[in-house]
Amino acid sequence: MKAKELMDKEFVYLNCDDNVVEVSKVMEEIRRFTCPVVNDNKQLVGWITSFDITKGLREGNQKIKEIMSSYEEITTIHEDAPARLAVILTANNKFVTVPVINDDNQVIGMIRSCDIVELLSELYDIKVYKLYEAMQHQLKGVTWEELMSASALVSKKTTGVKISPEDYEANIMNATFGEAIWATGGLEKFFAGLISVGEMVIARKVGKARR
Amino acid sequence: MKAKELMDKEFVYLNCDDNVVEVSKVMEEIRRFTCPVVNDNKQLVGWITSFDITKGLREGNQKIKEIMSSYEEITTIHEDAPARLAVILTANNKFVTVPVINDDNQVIGMIRSCDIVELLSELYDIKVYKLYEAMQHQLKGVTWEELMSASALVSKKTTGVKISPEDYEANIMNATFGEAIWATGGLEKFFAGLISVGEMVIARKVGKARR
Repeated sequence: MKAKELMDKEFVYLNCDDNVVEVSKVMEEIRRFTCPVVNDNKQLVGWITSFDITKGLREGNQKIKEIMSSYEEITTIHEDAPARLAVILTANNKFVTVPVINDDNQVIGMIRSCDIVELLSELYDIKVYKLYEAMQHQLKGVTWEELMSASALVSKKTTGVKISPEDYEANIMNATFGEAIWATGGLEKFFAGLISVGEMVIARKVGKARR
Repeated sequence: MKAKELMDKEFVYLNCDDNVVEVSKVMEEIRRFTCPVVNDNKQLVGWITSFDITKGLREGNQKIKEIMSSYEEITTIHEDAPARLAVILTANNKFVTVPVINDDNQVIGMIRSCDIVELLSELYDIKVYKLYEAMQHQLKGVTWEELMSASALVSKKTTGVKISPEDYEANIMNATFGEAIWATGGLEKFFAGLISVGEMVIARKVGKARR
């Protein structure tokens, strides 16, 4: 996934000569704490945050160019850079927004932390049973009942608590990937549990084929 | 994971009678676009964003209580609520911050979108080889070389492109879970590929045992 696939193309850009008071009203209306400042060719030349605006209003500045951060101070991401880079920049620098630029240094979109949260959280929302369905599909000849029965056994072995295949199935129908990772103590452990289930059903399948 | 485990305990709260100009300076200094307003008992009574501040500065308001959002308009999360709820609230409402409250309606922390990005992105940063190590650990008796050899074969079957076990190993040493999910087209597909590798090494192991 590239930065341009994650960015929001709907944004407002400012010009150096825009009036500070007018800009403050626009930012309130569109509810954006940050805005890029561009030249006539839409190339990034500055950056405005609500902090610049409050300071500018207090000190009576007239034009955006008097209060904006200069180009050198702005962290940008190229449209073809991996989307992951935007995630890392946001996490490490506590950014609210990262502007996306093209080869000509034109601003073509904005990547916002709340959009990243939405993207990342989708993965966590995948229901666990979807992974079991993928496993069953992959391991041709294994039934859903065999898979649940093996899972209940592995679960008992791991947690020490007995659970019926039916209860196990009910659990994974509701549980999300995110909850399962947190419950098992991390991705590797969650994954090891699934491999363990796979191992058991494959061993049973091979055993059946041999008889 | 609970909301209180995700929240930032370092935050600044405001009082109803605080001066708008002074608050604007504080928010610039601590670089926060949002702040909770509390009473003498630290109970949440209002909410201030930079948008309220810019409007207040323009219109000459004196006190925070003149410009704050009222309690009824604020979305909060209880300290013992699942952290996932904060993620959903942030993603769905494009929040920058969600205040965390206790049973007495006191603000005890703030959950910020950039902190959520940091938390969620940690999962994506796990190196893929860690999952193969977990698989090898789980499937006792399977060597790393057997695992890489099976992976190279599965990869060729899936992508149509031939790859040596050595090159496959080099790939997973650098690749992260996030990149792998994006590259394979989703969690279920990525997972199905791993199960396929597991199936192959288990079948070989069983075959060897039989000889």
